[in-house]
Amino acid sequence: MKIGIVGLGRMGANIARRLMRDRHTCVVFDKSADAIAALEQEGATGAADLAAMVKALEPPRAVWVMLPSGDITEATVEALAGAMESGDIIIDGGNSFYKDDIRRAASLKARGINYVDVGTSGGVWGIDRGYCMMIGGDAAIVGHLDPIFKTLAPGIGTIDRTPDRAGHDPRAEHGYIHAGPTGAGHFVKMVHNGIEYGLMQAYAEGFDILRNKAMAELPAHERFELNLADISEVWRRGSVVSSWLLDLTAAALAKDEQLTDFTGFVEDSGEGRWTIEAAIEEAVPAEVLTASLFARFRSRQEHTFGEKMLSAMRRGFGGHLEKGPTPVLKGE
Amino acid sequence: MKIGIVGLGRMGANIARRLMRDRHTCVVFDKSADAIAALEQEGATGAADLAAMVKALEPPRAVWVMLPSGDITEATVEALAGAMESGDIIIDGGNSFYKDDIRRAASLKARGINYVDVGTSGGVWGIDRGYCMMIGGDAAIVGHLDPIFKTLAPGIGTIDRTPDRAGHDPRAEHGYIHAGPTGAGHFVKMVHNGIEYGLMQAYAEGFDILRNKAMAELPAHERFELNLADISEVWRRGSVVSSWLLDLTAAALAKDEQLTDFTGFVEDSGEGRWTIEAAIEEAVPAEVLTASLFARFRSRQEHTFGEKMLSAMRRGFGGHLEKGPTPVLKGE
Amino acid sequence: MKIGIVGLGRMGANIARRLMRDRHTCVVFDKSADAIAALEQEGATGAADLAAMVKALEPPRAVWVMLPSGDITEATVEALAGAMESGDIIIDGGNSFYKDDIRRAASLKARGINYVDVGTSGGVWGIDRGYCMMIGGDAAIVGHLDPIFKTLAPGIGTIDRTPDRAGHDPRAEHGYIHAGPTGAGHFVKMVHNGIEYGLMQAYAEGFDILRNKAMAELPAHERFELNLADISEVWRRGSVVSSWLLDLTAAALAKDEQLTDFTGFVEDSGEGRWTIEAAIEEAVPAEVLTASLFARFRSRQEHTFGEKMLSAMRRGFGGHLEKGPTPVLKGE
Amino acid sequence: MKIGIVGLGRMGANIARRLMRDRHTCVVFDKSADAIAALEQEGATGAADLAAMVKALEPPRAVWVMLPSGDITEATVEALAGAMESGDIIIDGGNSFYKDDIRRAASLKARGINYVDVGTSGGVWGIDRGYCMMIGGDAAIVGHLDPIFKTLAPGIGTIDRTPDRAGHDPRAEHGYIHAGPTGAGHFVKMVHNGIEYGLMQAYAEGFDILRNKAMAELPAHERFELNLADISEVWRRGSVVSSWLLDLTAAALAKDEQLTDFTGFVEDSGEGRWTIEAAIEEAVPAEVLTASLFARFRSRQEHTFGEKMLSAMRRGFGGHLEKGPTPVLKGE
Repeated sequence: MKIGIVGLGRMGANIARRLMRDRHTCVVFDKSADAIAALEQEGATGAADLAAMVKALEPPRAVWVMLPSGDITEATVEALAGAMESGDIIIDGGNSFYKDDIRRAASLKARGINYVDVGTSGGVWGIDRGYCMMIGGDAAIVGHLDPIFKTLAPGIGTIDRTPDRAGHDPRAEHGYIHAGPTGAGHFVKMVHNGIEYGLMQAYAEGFDILRNKAMAELPAHERFELNLADISEVWRRGSVVSSWLLDLTAAALAKDEQLTDFTGFVEDSGEGRWTIEAAIEEAVPAEVLTASLFARFRSRQEHTFGEKMLSAMRRGFGGHLEKGPTPVLKGE
Repeated sequence: MKIGIVGLGRMGANIARRLMRDRHTCVVFDKSADAIAALEQEGATGAADLAAMVKALEPPRAVWVMLPSGDITEATVEALAGAMESGDIIIDGGNSFYKDDIRRAASLKARGINYVDVGTSGGVWGIDRGYCMMIGGDAAIVGHLDPIFKTLAPGIGTIDRTPDRAGHDPRAEHGYIHAGPTGAGHFVKMVHNGIEYGLMQAYAEGFDILRNKAMAELPAHERFELNLADISEVWRRGSVVSSWLLDLTAAALAKDEQLTDFTGFVEDSGEGRWTIEAAIEEAVPAEVLTASLFARFRSRQEHTFGEKMLSAMRRGFGGHLEKGPTPVLKGE
Repeated sequence: MKIGIVGLGRMGANIARRLMRDRHTCVVFDKSADAIAALEQEGATGAADLAAMVKALEPPRAVWVMLPSGDITEATVEALAGAMESGDIIIDGGNSFYKDDIRRAASLKARGINYVDVGTSGGVWGIDRGYCMMIGGDAAIVGHLDPIFKTLAPGIGTIDRTPDRAGHDPRAEHGYIHAGPTGAGHFVKMVHNGIEYGLMQAYAEGFDILRNKAMAELPAHERFELNLADISEVWRRGSVVSSWLLDLTAAALAKDEQLTDFTGFVEDSGEGRWTIEAAIEEAVPAEVLTASLFARFRSRQEHTFGEKMLSAMRRGFGGHLEKGPTPVLKGE
Repeated sequence: MKIGIVGLGRMGANIARRLMRDRHTCVVFDKSADAIAALEQEGATGAADLAAMVKALEPPRAVWVMLPSGDITEATVEALAGAMESGDIIIDGGNSFYKDDIRRAASLKARGINYVDVGTSGGVWGIDRGYCMMIGGDAAIVGHLDPIFKTLAPGIGTIDRTPDRAGHDPRAEHGYIHAGPTGAGHFVKMVHNGIEYGLMQAYAEGFDILRNKAMAELPAHERFELNLADISEVWRRGSVVSSWLLDLTAAALAKDEQLTDFTGFVEDSGEGRWTIEAAIEEAVPAEVLTASLFARFRSRQEHTFGEKMLSAMRRGFGGHLEKGPTPVLKGE
């Protein structure tokens, strides 16, 4: 298929590359002329602007927008729609908030433009491993774009087949699903990221407990110096906690068990926050996902004001003076 | 009554003072001769050591031990018991772990010595407000010591009476209870402190949200500069969240709304930890009490190793580089 | 002052009564004619509809809307504004979301109508104890309404004065504050309710640990039958955890220690949820407030789907079959 | 090697089978004669009792104990040690608490008996996938047993090699590690299980949010009916959250998307609890692991007493009556 791609950051450029490898034709645009030139070197057709891109495609045109969520995606979708004709398709492959998808799709539908939201997981590894895609939109349009999704998806590969999949949508085994109407794709991807935070935090806490076993103020015979690199490696084989995130952890710890390259300021993005807001809207208790988000918030502060308040109250009722950052022994 | 008091720190000395004000006779001991001398000035009889204290009392002797929990209390109880006779009474008014009480009481009982555990709340304010006491031990012994407890307790005072208290133990209204067998006193006090952590953290988080309303990266018309001193004051009157901890908070914020005296390193003590262990033993979910303890643990570290692991994983799957401690905007 | 009051539910009717007791004049409206008639009996002037109410007041008219947040408040504010003139004042004393306040105030300002948001705490007790009020809006308008707020507020009363209050806004000591611009009143009240959830949950967990001490599968000498009514009562005197919520708890437990009247389905309202959303917007970790909200969500379900998933995974990796609702012993 | 195996439950019997497949010689004992007979059919030598087993082995004898942790393991270790000679080896492959290991090893060492603790992960799948083993004890003894561990471990298999492993212990890549001194094996396995709880709960919460998207009281255009079976399947390919637990989840959901076989009573075992106690001992915040444990506690109760207390407080301050188990709308 012929497809336009707007946004040639790491994700967008690699998506174009993976499509071209499978002989799709890509018309590409980015605010950076260098980014366009680089892709042209690899076989893409550069477009000077969005209007030029639309002109370079044939109806029904399909343009994949791969930009940071928020204003820039919003403006790009609007500009594309202005240049397009009825029947054309805009794909938002970024990380938009699903309620923005629903709003946009309704607005574009009035003009005959189709809107598809694609939650795309795969990060820097996707170009080779393939991208796991969760897609929202009209079934007919999603079906029309199937060749694109099929190429980008990982495929069945060497992963063990799940039993009892007969009768289920075969696309899931290839690494992409039509999750539901507009917004459903980004909603599922959002929850995916929420889960990702929880998984990461579970490992982080566990390794923290392992590491502090050597350093906590415990009796000497209860202290162990544990080799975190070996532990993460051994859990990759035959244990219940094996996962791709553990693979990455093992790689990081094998390289440097102290993780000295890292400070511990951990960012979060919209999806983690929106997942909690969705849980609240649905009245679903989501302790673990929320605690994982809050651990990131906390990691970016030296001290919270709340902690100062705790100290102030302790001085108020007990005359306790603040000490420095030394751990306190149990039972003291 | 005549009573021995071991340990003349802030709590022990004030307990002696409150008893003497009500014409009880106190024989006092501390490892610091100055502390003994100070109390002698106020009417107490100093003892040169534990044996001398025991000699200065009449059977059945009662000695109130007011020392940090752990080894020092353990050794003192053991030494006292060695000097005492059958029928004498040791009162542990400190913050011992209730399972230590149970063990000690069983061991002392074999020698005819009675053991009473008293969880004592009141902090630096107790000398005037009185001490709230939760008592464990044999009913007869607790009854024998009633004059002591009555003096130390706050009494009914000006606090509104609870309706429907007829038929309940009248001691509760005076500020002390016989909670149950040995260990029950410190167990109830332990849970009291667990709750205290939870209450403190609830206020701390709420005020953090209020304070950051001015500073978060929100649209200008959604930012408010809120006066925390006035807010804490207004909630003291007629609101659902009024409490003694709020009174202390209001006092601290009235003095300095920025709490610049405090860094935010927050200690914890045995009771907070034991409360969670009790919850686990009983299979009782205790999210809030646990989160409050963990917030204190976290407050004493610059970064956890777990946070570095999160950063390492993020670099692993997404090529994300760590940024500094700037908050991230929603939806980015 | 003369003031209109819309919504004569428990809160609205009692507000009218407290105002009339202090010789303010109230014009009242409710969708229930009976509710209007009842207030007329007590000296209020009934209005047949909102237009009639507006006519019965003199410029600058002030109308206090005391309705459930959401559509009904929105529609009422809109209808009032339609009947009012430039310079008139609408007070939303309900529990509106503060962003709705900001939106409404901006829209009304264009028509010259003033909007004041008042977070009102006090519940069924407010008519006698007074209402704690957190007010958002223009200082001049808030000043103009001061006689109303002064009457409704609890006043200094017999509560101990906070030291170091000199130089601070004296209204706080009387039980009301001008928190900031429009929305600030409801924002502060929202956080107040968020804290309230946290305080309540801290007590709930603590008492759960106390209660299960008798029932958990522990060695006999570690089990205590604790008297929760007496414990809640004793903590009211001299302890660190004394509070108004504890007073209510003590009253409930004195009446029935088993709380047999209650099932344990716990509702939540907008404020608790919005508080967490505010924390997320501000990147403030708020574990305790969130856990308190989630405990309520969980209380309203028999089982979550997530729990079934845990059972399915356990069967998957360990062949574990589900057992019934019996607690599991530690170490089994 | 020749080895004794005590306890022929699912784990013990399969360990014997995997060893025999690789031509080790197994002397087996179980309290069930049938269990012994079954293994004899497959080539093992049955022993009538522990003494007979010890006789059937040659010095230095090695016996693998695979029993539920607690009294039965304790008694068996003691009985074996009584029948053994200096230089013999007891392996505890069960789920003992690591402090029990430390205590036992010290006591056995005085008699010349060696003690090795092996945390064994693999569940019902281990016989074919191999067992991931975390081993504590003296290096020489662990080295002596290497043929046993090598056979039981999964081996390198087809799993991608971790880069930068050169210079690290090669055993980890084969699926077993010598974690440290006695107790270290079970300690690492304990934290492994703690992490497992966290991972499981992260998935459970995420799928709960997905499932309730169709059922929550949201506007119709914000409700999606999502296919959980397909979502779990698609995440297995190329997504950040792929893991073995997700594989199991996908299998369960493919079979029955409603999970109607499961009620949602979720058991917990010692390891999950001990992990939290270790975190507390080390002052490591472990929100996610703890919340996962508490979710299991909560799943086994219809209502907590704490929830009734919340209802009682709500009636106390607001006159709120309890409603049934219907979800409450946001903003009401």
